[in-house]
Order: sequence, then C-alpha cells, then structure tokens
Amino acid sequence: MDLNKESSEAFKPLFYPESVAVVGATNNSKKMGCHVLKSLIRNFPGNIYPVNPNYSTLFGLKTYPSLKDIPRKVDLAILVVQRQMLFDVIKECIEKGVKALVIVTAGFREAEIEDGSELHRELAELVNSAGIKVIGPNTFGMVNTHANLNASFTPVLSEVKKGNIALISQSGGVCHLLFPYAIQEGIGLSKIVGLGNRLNVDFADMLEYLAFDEETRSIALYVEGIDNPREMIEVAREVVKRKPIVAYKAGRFEAANRAAKSHTGSLAGNYTIYKSAFRQAGIIVVEDLIELISSAKALAFQNPPEGRNVAVVSLVAGLGMVAADVCEETGLKLVEFTKETKEEIFKLLPPYTIRTNPVDLGFVANDPDVCGEVIKAVFEDENVQGVVLNYIYSWGDDFLKLPTDAIIDAAESSGKPITMCLKYPLSIWEKEKEKLEENGVPTFPTPELAAKAMAALAEYGEVKRKLSR
Amino acid sequence: MDLNKESSEAFKPLFYPESVAVVGATNNSKKMGCHVLKSLIRNFPGNIYPVNPNYSTLFGLKTYPSLKDIPRKVDLAILVVQRQMLFDVIKECIEKGVKALVIVTAGFREAEIEDGSELHRELAELVNSAGIKVIGPNTFGMVNTHANLNASFTPVLSEVKKGNIALISQSGGVCHLLFPYAIQEGIGLSKIVGLGNRLNVDFADMLEYLAFDEETRSIALYVEGIDNPREMIEVAREVVKRKPIVAYKAGRFEAANRAAKSHTGSLAGNYTIYKSAFRQAGIIVVEDLIELISSAKALAFQNPPEGRNVAVVSLVAGLGMVAADVCEETGLKLVEFTKETKEEIFKLLPPYTIRTNPVDLGFVANDPDVCGEVIKAVFEDENVQGVVLNYIYSWGDDFLKLPTDAIIDAAESSGKPITMCLKYPLSIWEKEKEKLEENGVPTFPTPELAAKAMAALAEYGEVKRKLSR
Repeated sequence: MDLNKESSEAFKPLFYPESVAVVGATNNSKKMGCHVLKSLIRNFPGNIYPVNPNYSTLFGLKTYPSLKDIPRKVDLAILVVQRQMLFDVIKECIEKGVKALVIVTAGFREAEIEDGSELHRELAELVNSAGIKVIGPNTFGMVNTHANLNASFTPVLSEVKKGNIALISQSGGVCHLLFPYAIQEGIGLSKIVGLGNRLNVDFADMLEYLAFDEETRSIALYVEGIDNPREMIEVAREVVKRKPIVAYKAGRFEAANRAAKSHTGSLAGNYTIYKSAFRQAGIIVVEDLIELISSAKALAFQNPPEGRNVAVVSLVAGLGMVAADVCEETGLKLVEFTKETKEEIFKLLPPYTIRTNPVDLGFVANDPDVCGEVIKAVFEDENVQGVVLNYIYSWGDDFLKLPTDAIIDAAESSGKPITMCLKYPLSIWEKEKEKLEENGVPTFPTPELAAKAMAALAEYGEVKRKLSR
Repeated sequence: MDLNKESSEAFKPLFYPESVAVVGATNNSKKMGCHVLKSLIRNFPGNIYPVNPNYSTLFGLKTYPSLKDIPRKVDLAILVVQRQMLFDVIKECIEKGVKALVIVTAGFREAEIEDGSELHRELAELVNSAGIKVIGPNTFGMVNTHANLNASFTPVLSEVKKGNIALISQSGGVCHLLFPYAIQEGIGLSKIVGLGNRLNVDFADMLEYLAFDEETRSIALYVEGIDNPREMIEVAREVVKRKPIVAYKAGRFEAANRAAKSHTGSLAGNYTIYKSAFRQAGIIVVEDLIELISSAKALAFQNPPEGRNVAVVSLVAGLGMVAADVCEETGLKLVEFTKETKEEIFKLLPPYTIRTNPVDLGFVANDPDVCGEVIKAVFEDENVQGVVLNYIYSWGDDFLKLPTDAIIDAAESSGKPITMCLKYPLSIWEKEKEKLEENGVPTFPTPELAAKAMAALAEYGEVKRKLSR
C-alpha cells in the first residue's frame, strides 16, 4: 500500500485549528468543562469560543448559548456535554461547518453498557458522512505543543516542552503518567493524543498522518487492543520507512488482557501474535513505559548505527558495567578496539583504570580535555558503530567539568549515534544537558536506559536496512 | 553462625564520630581535599579538624600542621593524601588514637598497578593491628544522614533525606547515580557507603553492623566481586532474619564481568552462581539500579504479605493493566474477589468500568469518598494479601482529590502491605505524597516499579516463612 499524504490534510483543522469552541464550558471547577476551557486558554493563540446557554462570559471570554450563535467559523469543537445531548450537539457542529471534534464525553461502547456499541456505530456514521475527524469519545483529549494547543481536560499538560516525539495512546492514564515524567526529564513532545474509543481516528489513521508531520521524528504507541490490526500493521510497515515507531502493547498476561478487552471494547488478542506482527512490520516493541518514551527519544534525536558493535565509555567503572550488561542483554556487542585506538587510550589513561571496552574515565575525570580525547578516539575507532556514554556528577563544581563540546564534536564528526546517561543532583548540570540535547545528544537518567536506547536505535537500523534491500 | 552485636560497637567511631579530622584538607577547589572538607562542614555538628601544614585556617576553621597537633581526641580521620604519604599518615593516626578511617586516596590494589596487592596487604595489617575500621581506600567516602555526617568528596550528598534504607556499594558511580534519584524522588537513606577497595570493611562486615543498626530497615547492595563470598553469604543468611537485603550483582555478561574483575581487584565470578547463592541466602536479587532502590524502599516501609495473592486498583484502566502485567510476570497472582467484595464494588462503581481485579476507579475518580470505599473493600477482601494502587494526576485541583486518609486507613486496619504508583506533574501532590509516606505508604513513579516493589515484599515474605519453619 502507499501512504496518502493528502489524507493528512483532513487532520489540519484538528491539530492546527484557527478557532476552537468548547461546548459544555463552565466555570464550575467540579465539572470537566471548566478544566477543558482552562487548558485551552493557557497558550492557544487563536479564537476561543465557550458555549453554554447559562453564561454570558467565562474567564473573560464571551460565551455563546449555542454553536450557531458564534459569528465566525469554528475549526475544532471540544465536546464536554452529557451523553444524552451528544447526538444533537454533533448535528449542530455539522450545521455550523465544524471540521474536527474532540469528544471528551464518555459512556459509549465501553463493554458493559447495554446500547454502547449501537450508539458508537450511529455516531460514527454521522461524523463520517460530514467528513469530520474525531478524537474520542471517552478521551482526555489531545495536545499539539507546536500549535500551543491543549485540547484536553488537564491544564498542566501545557507545561510539556515542544519536541519531536508523538505519543499516541489508547489510555489517558498512560499519557498522564508519562507527561509528568516528560516535564521532569525535559523531554519534548510534538503531539499527545488519547485515542479514546476511536470513533473514526484509530492508530492506522494517526500513523499515516504522523508519517508526514514535520514536527514528529519518532512515534510512541501505547496499545491495548486494535479493531483492525491488519490495516494498522500495513500502514506501520510503510510509516517505518519514513520514521521509527516504538510500541508498548498491554495484556502480556491474562488479567491485563481480560481488562484490555473490557476497557477498549475491542479485541486485545494474543500478546505473542501482536508482538511478532509488530516486529515484522518494523515496529520496535518495548515492555516498560519509561523505556517507551526513552527509546522514542533516542530515535527522535539520532540516526541508527550501521550495526550492533558499540563502545561503552563511563566516567566511573560501575556505570560502565551496568551499561555493558544491558548492551549485551539486548544484543549489542562490545567490540574490541583497533590497535590504534588501544594505543591512543593507553597513552591517555593511567594504568590503574579500565582501558578496554567498557572504558573507565574515572582517574582522569577532573581533566575534561583528556576525557574528550578518549571519547573522540573511541568514536573514531572503525570497529565502533555507536557509543553509550555515562556521566554522573561528583565532587564540586570546579573539580569535575563535562567535556560537552568534545562529546558533541566527536558524535557529529564521526556520524555515529550516541546515547548518554547523564545524572546529577538538583539542577547542577541543567545547562550542559540542554546544550547536549540542542546539539542532538539524547540524555537519559540511568545507564540502563541509555543502553536500551542504543539497542532501539540498532533495531531501527536493521529495520531500515531490511526495507532498503 | 551467630551475628556478633558487640562487633558493631567498633563501627561507632566511623558512623557516629564526635570529632573528625580531614588530612589533606585544602581550599584549592582543584583538589579533592577541598571538597571533602566542604562536605563535612555542610551539616556535621561535631568538631572538625582540617590538617595541612600549609594553612593556618581553612573555611574559617583552625587548621593543624599534623594530626598530633590537634589538642583533642579524633574519632574519625578522612585521608585525602598522596598515595606515597599514606603509610606515614596512617601511622600518625594510630599514634593519635584515631578509631576509624575513610581513605579516599586511590592507587592500591587496582589490577594494573604493579605493587598494588602487596601495598594493600601491608596497609591492612597496619590498621588491623590497631583495631581501626577503614572505609576504602579508593572510595568517595560515606554518609550517615542520621548523624549529619557527610564523609565524602561530594558536598551535595548532604541533600539526601534521612531515611531507613542503607546503600552499600562497591561502586562510587552507582551511589552517585542513585543519590540524585533519591533526592528527586524524596527517598530517604540511612547510610551510603562506598566500600572502595575494602581494606578491612567488606560486605559481610557492613551487613553484620547494619543488622543491628536501628536507623536501617532495609539494605541495598551493589556488588561487583567479593573476596570471601562464603563469609558474606553466611552473614547475609543471618541478617535476613532481622531485615531484608536487596542486591544488584554486576557482570551478568562477559564484558562487564571482565571489567568487574579488573575494577575491584577481586573475583567477579559467575553470575548465575552468585545469583543462586544470593537467593539461597534469602537475598532478593534485582537486575536494574532503580529497581534496587525501589525494592529497598518498599521493604523499608512495609511488612511482607502473607502470600502472592494481590489486587491491583487504579485510577485509570491503563495503569492497572501495566501493573497487572508486571505482577503476573513477577509471580504475583491477581486473585478473584470474594462474593461480598464483588457485590460491594458493583454497588460502588458504574457498569461502564472494570470492576474485577484489576479494578478501574476511572469513572468515580472525582469522588474520593467512593474511591476510598472501593479501596477499603479491596483491602478487606480475605483473598487479597497485598494491594498495588495506581494514581496519576489529571484535571484540575478541585476536580480530582486523592483519598489519602482512606488509603492510609485501609492499609493500616487491614495490616496488608501496599505499594503505590503516584505520579503528578511539578510538585502538585507533594504534600499528599509526604503524608502517605509518613504513614508508611511507599510511593513509586511508575506502575511497573510499584508492582515490582510488591513482588520484592512477597519474596521477602517467603524468605521469612522459610526461616521460621
């Protein structure tokens, strides 16, 4: 199949609206409509139209009794209304010419409700006939950081940094676990989407759209169950030619699998089958949520290595061992350096340290120039295809300096990927971290995550080489 | 064997000194002696004696030309001197009646130095003859939070909160990775010890001491290689009767194993043999550094469950599935609730949610009373032996409230252990977290860590039951 770039035009009013209405807006903080309006107000630069017949203004914004009273066009409407009103409100949206919807309202299709599936089908027909793209229902909403658009019920989602990782999730909870982590670790995201019950926007649609999204360099998926796995797999197979996809599939074991079926109203299916189908399509599968976002980060920052031969360089021996173990566990190989590199490193490092792979910089730690030279020598070794570098803070500020420029230069001039563990107390190395990341060096808070990130890069390299054959 | 409580008296001058000398103190921030002195000055309430013939005062403290010039007794001396001077300085320490040493100076015993092993043996004889306990050489030092003692070269280690987890590590790097994490997550530690080259204080000695340390409830070990594994295992077997031990052993694979041998100058040995020996001794083995500190945290906070039957309760379905998967992966069982619990939960939760194990609170999230009642019902279920609870922040402040008191009460009155995933952006739920932890509920930043922490508790429960047979 071919991806349809034009189809992605249909998503423009959803992710880049010029005007947004909130139907069910209120200032009653016990209601979701209040938090949705607050989220939107945070940063959105376009027109905002609260809709609620009981108010004339909300948070200083003119408020309209109904959609049809809004004097100008509405690109996107966020619906936070009673389930019973939803049909009528959607009809009003169609009459008004609204082009995209985020439906926060829940109570459709979830397994235990009697007429859920029927209602879901009717709603889908209605919006499809009008060509409207819908996120939801039963979603917290979505965020497009690059448009300063927080179309969700959680205002603090606006604190997430602009970046190039798209997070597409079947669980709002997983987004709400990962976005505080992203804020804490300074990880930038492009889009955060809670698919909810997927009225007409499912994983396949999002993947096709994101394949052409200039602000997205890697895609992280949290999957519970998929209605049409074949379609999703076929689209993914094309998308991975353009950008990497990492996925977490819930339901490895029985209890979660049962819950997934019940939660999403769609087949969760056999984990092993999913995993193997994902892998065959070139999707990288992870089994930990922090690894999901970490791998996506590495893939958004770095090109894949040409193979699995890596070097581990660490400020301290212990972290090098931890990283080396994870490298070998994930199928990376700690290569032997060439004779030239060995000679170079033996000149630079004192005898009472580990000078083979993994390399220990411990005893020259307070000389950033020497550290930088060792790092450079390792990057330039022809046997080395990628470098996992581990730095932790110790001593005081004047004693230990990061060879930031040398790291950036070595990675850039060698053209080989790097993943870096960089951990420090409080905000001591915040600026160094920012500089490294601005220059394309992704940092991670543990050696394990740095090593796993390199493994994800290597896996994507294999996917790309397989595709180009 | 029996543990010797009296032997732990010998460690008192090390961990609870009244006076500390820093030999090699300086104000030259390019030298370690500067940072060691700064570390000590931070919080230590006792007498501090800098020693350096080139200064009369350092940081406002009277400075002595040599140890013998100090007019009062010295309990602990931290040595940051040239390798060549070390013998003479130790002899001076013995003459002065110093009772404990932290030797930061390196360059002994590490594999590649010619006369390393011989020097190491001579030093050991010297200090042993004087009955002096030594941390190091080749260590960053150690911290006893409860004595406000930072006897290390990293001043910011003083920011670590007082707590009940002891971290004993063969790698300073691992301590320097984990202490910023502990600060970030508000994890309290009792002691942080970098064993270095273990002149006469090794894992076995530390374990025996910590078995009787009232400020330590659980012990986390980072192990590279052990000189006398049999002794360590025998001591551990006794210690686990009193308190839990969690260990990370480096060198699962070849490269790290080789590095471990070289780094510590002692046998790293076969990982599988270590792992099985550790487990037979009742040590809980983990293969991730964050899991090391998380498991130790759970074990410091909670008693073990009576068995492996657990319940997972989550504010949102997705996190429940993730936690359920890890529970089953680690051998925990998601039990079926009793008829009474089922009836109770069916009364409390609406139909369009997951009301079996894992329980989804999603649609009553904004009613903390109902959430609290569900949590209580689950704790009281006679089939349930432990609860993994997952909460994430969403909406705004007035909408979602944590049922903090209900969680604390339910755990306390049932007497069953709880591990809780609690994640929120910025510092939004900081106070709730503090209240939960002050009342014994350990929190973790991901559902995976919360589930693994429960698995560690269950494993320790089995160790204790086996020992009491």
